[in-house]
Amino acid sequence: MLHRLATLTAERESGQLLRRLRTIDHADGPWLESGGRRLLSFCSNDYLGLAQHPQLIAAFKRTADDEGVGSTSAHLICGHRREHAALEEALAAWTGRDRALLFSTGYMANLGVLQTLLARGDLCLQDKLNHACLLDGAQLSGAELKRYPHADVAAAARQFSSRGGAAALLATDGVFSMDGDVAPLRELADLCAREQATLMVDDAHGLGVLGSDGAGSLSAAGLGQHEVPVLMATLGKALGCAGAFVAGSASLIDGLTQLARPYIYTTAMPPAVAAAALAAVQLAQSETWRREKLAASIARFRRGAAELGLPLLPSSSAIQPLLLGDADTAVAASRHLEQHCLLVGAIRPPTVPAGKARLRITLSAAHDDAHVDQLLAALETLPAPAASPRRV
Amino acid sequence: MLHRLATLTAERESGQLLRRLRTIDHADGPWLESGGRRLLSFCSNDYLGLAQHPQLIAAFKRTADDEGVGSTSAHLICGHRREHAALEEALAAWTGRDRALLFSTGYMANLGVLQTLLARGDLCLQDKLNHACLLDGAQLSGAELKRYPHADVAAAARQFSSRGGAAALLATDGVFSMDGDVAPLRELADLCAREQATLMVDDAHGLGVLGSDGAGSLSAAGLGQHEVPVLMATLGKALGCAGAFVAGSASLIDGLTQLARPYIYTTAMPPAVAAAALAAVQLAQSETWRREKLAASIARFRRGAAELGLPLLPSSSAIQPLLLGDADTAVAASRHLEQHCLLVGAIRPPTVPAGKARLRITLSAAHDDAHVDQLLAALETLPAPAASPRRV
Ligand SMILES: Cc1ncc(COP(=O)(O)O)c(C=O)c1O
Ligand SMILES: Cc1ncc(COP(=O)(O)O)c(C=O)c1O
Repeated sequence: MLHRLATLTAERESGQLLRRLRTIDHADGPWLESGGRRLLSFCSNDYLGLAQHPQLIAAFKRTADDEGVGSTSAHLICGHRREHAALEEALAAWTGRDRALLFSTGYMANLGVLQTLLARGDLCLQDKLNHACLLDGAQLSGAELKRYPHADVAAAARQFSSRGGAAALLATDGVFSMDGDVAPLRELADLCAREQATLMVDDAHGLGVLGSDGAGSLSAAGLGQHEVPVLMATLGKALGCAGAFVAGSASLIDGLTQLARPYIYTTAMPPAVAAAALAAVQLAQSETWRREKLAASIARFRRGAAELGLPLLPSSSAIQPLLLGDADTAVAASRHLEQHCLLVGAIRPPTVPAGKARLRITLSAAHDDAHVDQLLAALETLPAPAASPRRV
Repeated sequence: MLHRLATLTAERESGQLLRRLRTIDHADGPWLESGGRRLLSFCSNDYLGLAQHPQLIAAFKRTADDEGVGSTSAHLICGHRREHAALEEALAAWTGRDRALLFSTGYMANLGVLQTLLARGDLCLQDKLNHACLLDGAQLSGAELKRYPHADVAAAARQFSSRGGAAALLATDGVFSMDGDVAPLRELADLCAREQATLMVDDAHGLGVLGSDGAGSLSAAGLGQHEVPVLMATLGKALGCAGAFVAGSASLIDGLTQLARPYIYTTAMPPAVAAAALAAVQLAQSETWRREKLAASIARFRRGAAELGLPLLPSSSAIQPLLLGDADTAVAASRHLEQHCLLVGAIRPPTVPAGKARLRITLSAAHDDAHVDQLLAALETLPAPAASPRRV
């Protein structure tokens, strides 16, 4: 079995698909130090630039002083702290849901929801580009999983048709993690209403970024708890911390509390992380300039990239991929940028479909205009084919 | 679907099996404040009393000052920090393995290992009392899962016999989370050697507690990487932090890095948590008095409980359950202890088999003799049937 694993690893290696681990020695806003070099990062998910905010750090440290590091237990034993409860309340209020429930990671939140809501014999529809953990959650549930072509509501509708009497749930990323586009949420909500199916949205990359209140893609689309009964979002991206939550009706949250295995059988997140996340929620709500600054950087980047004829995707979020095609090209482009002291991840199969390797550029409120311009200047020097075919 | 969930929740309620969430307002060593009362806790997993250790808190705060709160990314993008690398090295050295790989939770570590190592057509044998996430990992892998009666090596051997040519993995808790006993590790290792099966041990409750060096149940049993190629353990129990790791050969770790979805597609743990865990590893190694104090408390408790005729289980670990039978009795006992200002969890089905509800008493190096005596005094006042049948 270990031999088989080594063979699989070797195959990755020979296909130039080996993922390499880089150790970051120090983070300073968008600047990362690694291997003695200072690199400007366009690959973090710290979209609002909150991960190093003094108020987050102060809340984190204060709670550690008062309560220690670990929660020492699962929520339902003795791990549920005041800080968790306060954060859950704030998240519910922000997202306009009755209640919220914390999970240690987004991965576990999605597993927990799908495993709990779905049963064998049910139907689970998912967008082809959904995040890995939504797929794993469906797999774990034993329900039938059908994946519709990306953002194709008509195709999703057709997949419902063979359903018979099965209960159904449709799950979609709110903002797609590798493409940056927003799901057709209103249309999906209408479809689910017609089909009496449960709609679940994973808003890991929308929360904090979208909506005038920052409450995410559902707020931007004006969709409430009635239309989207299951909302999942993470605390480790725009909120700069770690962990995740599910928000919805009291009965959804009560049910997950009683039945979701990745909620019940795991250590609660450190109370200091919850306290920092609460500070982040407050900042994401009050410091609206962060969203505005981010939006300005996104616009500046897209304008500049379009002028350069770079292969932009139709994204208005902080995720701005450049589609380069094969894995080698993406890796070469990432290396090239690194020579210009820029850190941008090359995303290759199997994370994205074959032939769709890309640079995944992420922007942040921590970036200034000069940073964006520095990125554009380096992209301009990219060897063909990246900058050549003007397919904007 | 949400209606079905509400029905399931209501069933739990009518069966007196509803889990209740208690908010802890403040932790102070083994003392927890909740609802205005100060309770002496015998239900945390902070076995070495490290969660509030000044050195952990100092490392945690220093790292937050330097690096912020969240890691802002997955390990393989730009989330792998110096603190993660240093912790992985220390964990590998401590457990006597080539390398170690961090996961955000033990839940995800187990899912990651099993999903990566096992494939459809393989056989996965597991102890009936294994932790929930080991079962979920097997489920996710698509391999055939067979569960042998608790600690029954002969039964496990028989389950191998129908295997044909299938690759096989046997997974067991090192210390069982609800019973506290240690798996028959040497016998299982011999069996796996004979069967050319991969042995995986989840040492969540052994690490820090067992072995003269604290390196866990495998160290105590003298079993190295050759005999037990896959070791998983957590950072959220004896080490007082959060997260987990897998340790083993370089090729195991390389393979997981490339292929384990719950490693690849998730946010790396906050660097401050890794720094605190490194401090905890150092303390768990150097402050041997913690293990000795814990062992003395375990012995004192067992002696006292035996004298009272309480239904002890054969456990020499920090987990000392009292088997009370039905759920109501366990809940009543927990309530009774709470009136004596003691917090002890009642563990009911489905966490444990029906008819095996229990008090799960956990001891810690944070407990003094007087604390143990206070617990014993309160247990003495338990109404029958708990204290009556002398079935030690
Ligand atoms: C869309 C989406 N969902 C879920 C997750 C998982 O969240 P977490 O990192 O908290 O495990 C991620 C990213 O990691 C994501 O991009
Ligand atoms: C035996 C065992 N394995 C794994 C886990 C999961 O670890 P974590 O709490 O880090 O998710 C636990 C407890 O939570 C456990 O008791």
